[in-house]
Amino acid sequence: MENPIRETKKYSKKELIYLIIFEADTFWGKIFDVSLLIVILLSVLAVSLESVEFINDDYGHLLRILEWVFTILFTFEYLARIYVIKKKWGYILSLYGIIDLLAIIPTYLSLMVAGSQTLVVIRSLRLLRIFRILKLARYLDAAANLKAAMQASKRKIFVFLGVVFILVIIMGTLMYIIEGSENGFTSIPRSIYWAVVTLTTVGYGDISPQTVLGQLVAMCIMIMGYGIIAVPTGIVSAEIASKKSRGKITTHICPSCTKEGHDFDATNCKYCGSSLDPDPFSSSRSRHPPY
Amino acid sequence: MENPIRETKKYSKKELIYLIIFEADTFWGKIFDVSLLIVILLSVLAVSLESVEFINDDYGHLLRILEWVFTILFTFEYLARIYVIKKKWGYILSLYGIIDLLAIIPTYLSLMVAGSQTLVVIRSLRLLRIFRILKLARYLDAAANLKAAMQASKRKIFVFLGVVFILVIIMGTLMYIIEGSENGFTSIPRSIYWAVVTLTTVGYGDISPQTVLGQLVAMCIMIMGYGIIAVPTGIVSAEIASKKSRGKITTHICPSCTKEGHDFDATNCKYCGSSLDPDPFSSSRSRHPPY
Amino acid sequence: MENPIRETKKYSKKELIYLIIFEADTFWGKIFDVSLLIVILLSVLAVSLESVEFINDDYGHLLRILEWVFTILFTFEYLARIYVIKKKWGYILSLYGIIDLLAIIPTYLSLMVAGSQTLVVIRSLRLLRIFRILKLARYLDAAANLKAAMQASKRKIFVFLGVVFILVIIMGTLMYIIEGSENGFTSIPRSIYWAVVTLTTVGYGDISPQTVLGQLVAMCIMIMGYGIIAVPTGIVSAEIASKKSRGKITTHICPSCTKEGHDFDATNCKYCGSSLDPDPFSSSRSRHPPY
Amino acid sequence: MENPIRETKKYSKKELIYLIIFEADTFWGKIFDVSLLIVILLSVLAVSLESVEFINDDYGHLLRILEWVFTILFTFEYLARIYVIKKKWGYILSLYGIIDLLAIIPTYLSLMVAGSQTLVVIRSLRLLRIFRILKLARYLDAAANLKAAMQASKRKIFVFLGVVFILVIIMGTLMYIIEGSENGFTSIPRSIYWAVVTLTTVGYGDISPQTVLGQLVAMCIMIMGYGIIAVPTGIVSAEIASKKSRGKITTHICPSCTKEGHDFDATNCKYCGSSLDPDPFSSSRSRHPPY
Repeated sequence: MENPIRETKKYSKKELIYLIIFEADTFWGKIFDVSLLIVILLSVLAVSLESVEFINDDYGHLLRILEWVFTILFTFEYLARIYVIKKKWGYILSLYGIIDLLAIIPTYLSLMVAGSQTLVVIRSLRLLRIFRILKLARYLDAAANLKAAMQASKRKIFVFLGVVFILVIIMGTLMYIIEGSENGFTSIPRSIYWAVVTLTTVGYGDISPQTVLGQLVAMCIMIMGYGIIAVPTGIVSAEIASKKSRGKITTHICPSCTKEGHDFDATNCKYCGSSLDPDPFSSSRSRHPPY
Repeated sequence: MENPIRETKKYSKKELIYLIIFEADTFWGKIFDVSLLIVILLSVLAVSLESVEFINDDYGHLLRILEWVFTILFTFEYLARIYVIKKKWGYILSLYGIIDLLAIIPTYLSLMVAGSQTLVVIRSLRLLRIFRILKLARYLDAAANLKAAMQASKRKIFVFLGVVFILVIIMGTLMYIIEGSENGFTSIPRSIYWAVVTLTTVGYGDISPQTVLGQLVAMCIMIMGYGIIAVPTGIVSAEIASKKSRGKITTHICPSCTKEGHDFDATNCKYCGSSLDPDPFSSSRSRHPPY
Repeated sequence: MENPIRETKKYSKKELIYLIIFEADTFWGKIFDVSLLIVILLSVLAVSLESVEFINDDYGHLLRILEWVFTILFTFEYLARIYVIKKKWGYILSLYGIIDLLAIIPTYLSLMVAGSQTLVVIRSLRLLRIFRILKLARYLDAAANLKAAMQASKRKIFVFLGVVFILVIIMGTLMYIIEGSENGFTSIPRSIYWAVVTLTTVGYGDISPQTVLGQLVAMCIMIMGYGIIAVPTGIVSAEIASKKSRGKITTHICPSCTKEGHDFDATNCKYCGSSLDPDPFSSSRSRHPPY
Repeated sequence: MENPIRETKKYSKKELIYLIIFEADTFWGKIFDVSLLIVILLSVLAVSLESVEFINDDYGHLLRILEWVFTILFTFEYLARIYVIKKKWGYILSLYGIIDLLAIIPTYLSLMVAGSQTLVVIRSLRLLRIFRILKLARYLDAAANLKAAMQASKRKIFVFLGVVFILVIIMGTLMYIIEGSENGFTSIPRSIYWAVVTLTTVGYGDISPQTVLGQLVAMCIMIMGYGIIAVPTGIVSAEIASKKSRGKITTHICPSCTKEGHDFDATNCKYCGSSLDPDPFSSSRSRHPPY
């Protein structure tokens, strides 16, 4: 009973649906998760294409049918999720639960309210589910490493962002005084926008300094931005370098406290101590956040 | 008496104001510092919004009232600071003291001189106080680490900036000869401005090379800039990686020499040797720069 | 017989051609590979210049003659390669074999089909041969190190690209709703294009946000992009730093399984175990991928 | 006689001038080098300002007088250098010697040939002397470290540049076929220029893809460029991190072979073995490249 998911055991139909929809490391669960991601991608693609005028003119009808197909599919999936899970409100009120609901509402709403169609684009948020799919694969480790590196350096990054924040306000204000409305720096917020565009080296060129002094200050901001980028990079690479590839982590989470990151051989949650027993319907089964 | 600030002790009213305004690690000090930062942000926001024409048309009156409210608040704060601190001129002539004064003068000046209003934007410099607020939180360590990494690599960065400086002058001059006035490279300073815009990968596009030779040189500058950015990044990340997370540092500074960076268990300044005694009005109390 | 290629041995003419064309570490093989690369570069240059209108007007005739010269040269080289190699279809169907064929077809095709001329630019793909030339020099190690670093961090990079992918879709969709067609964000795909242009800090400025809310979101994307770039950089530099300069690797590959990366003193393939014997026409001779 | 420059010793006038002009670590040598750099900067500034039309209209006369003053100063310096150095042709034919000459010729030439004035901008190359000034200070170590890091990673950087080179040619060619002349991609070289502008994330926006397919390819190039920048950064930071701060190096160079990088306690050149004796006019005196 070391790898208990693999064991053959009689599951009820409800239990089977649960395993397929919520669990990522059974064979059918993997199939389901990957298929779901593909369907989500297709539905986002359909919504995207509908927004392109000349495609909408030619294939608008087809795309609207597809939208209904996807919406109905997603509705069934949503209802199935609610049906099989034990803590129904836990799922409904979770981030994924809300996104899943928001992804289907606009299409139904469009029957009553004209124009609510556009909100279908919210569906793109469902792509966040890729993070659950990642759990499938050996990408979990890579993701965990990256996350840990981010976590460890979050304070340094906060300090860095604070400095950037003040810098763009001061520089934007300065440029507003130097350049003034006649050169496109029509207000302080707009000048701050320009400062961000310049400091991050994006450089649209929709606003650019015209006076000599303005160009001098702009040059300072650019070289600053060019140098400052070294800081987050330095922080993150130092952090990643110091992280050793840690032992493999299971995709399961504690069914009681829904915390993740348990080792493969763990039998109890390292945060709340409750059993990580694999039976999906004993309250302690599902080791990964089920939604 | 190990953490002496926490101890309950009878303070005079003046002492209490001092503790609240200047000290960051008492409860009320934290509240004050965070509130102050919020008020500063709001006042900067008000000045920013006033510069937006259509907002000024509708809410200009309200914003000008707010400006007076903020100015009066800041004036009281400024006077309070002078009142409670011992070394009054030390504060008045310090960077923070000057910024605090400059932040309130323009509004009063606008009563006499029309147009001096615009100088109110200097107020955005008060945001630098965020660096004092950072002391509050556990961000001190992160900031200290970053600062130390910068400090250690400052010479390498100086060499790097020197190379960039010479490079843009030579490249700018070269492009002035190659492209000439008819393609927007109207003068050498303007060509140098273009070289900075290009080398830092900002790329506004307000000036761009038109001749074949000019585009060839531009390509070299771009690839150079693309590669050169590796240098400051490399310097900083090597430095950060080599820094070990050093022991926690207290936010207090030496009241005699105003140097920072003392350990939590330090009782005497490690720079001038004077006592780091916690009584705020014994000359050796305030361990962090009080303004 | 330690470095068996250097030994003087009677080779047939066919064997000699094989050694020159396919082997990179004999004297004449080096000469051939470098000459070939120069000829490829010249042919790409000729095709490029032909596309410039004013050069085509003046030197079009000469360039077309050159094109035929290069085509015939490449045709001879292609036929020679097929003639001397044992596994003829192995070469013909390999990536390099297909590119070599595609590089000569368009010129012949232009005799029959007008306009097929343009496809000659496919020839630029032959530049990929530089990777075979690299094997010549001591650059093999550097290339192997870089490749290994990439290999080791490919999962982290995949996770990173996934995040970027979702981010630009969500941000693009968001901006499509905020800005709308009237500000250039005419469709979701176009908005996603804008999001990529902004997140990667390219910033053409052909589309740029006009509304205040749009500029706010744009600022977030820019700062995100500015910070996110730290992640791949961090991954790669941590990986490169951890890689020790490994022992020198021979340019030869296994003649049976065509795997690369064998040590200089290896006598058998470390993947399939077959002999790495140097005789080019014993099936176990050619240690590096012969095309 | 351990630090032999510091010792008081009777020098002839010629020897004194030599010490001042060529040696960087005596007191007067430092003064001279810094003054020279300031004068060079001023002369470059004068030339730059002369190229600005409205400044030239008002102060053109003054700037032209200044130019003559600087030219005469530089002429005296040039003659003095030739006068005091032993290996006169060594200096005259060295990089610095040629730049020094080129910096003064155009002004004299302008007396005979009209328009040769413009060549005065060559003077900006004299700024390269900053690298000699750096020797003065403790920046030598930092510069040496950076140089060593670059040296060590030059092969990896070469491989990287090769990949970038091929990538922009292939991508440029591809975009030429996809977009064509009507969208600004008028020729292959111009498309390659666009590819460099995009890959390096400069993004002028003077040329930008208009077709859907073109934008798709452009997105790939951008994300590639965004990711690829990680490679040189990774290379350089790994290299800098691995470099230990090496022992201090003297600014002197071998008077026989003019190689640099000798330790402070070295008495003989580590490359040619000749004595590093401090007497400036014994052939073995000047330890740093005297021009």
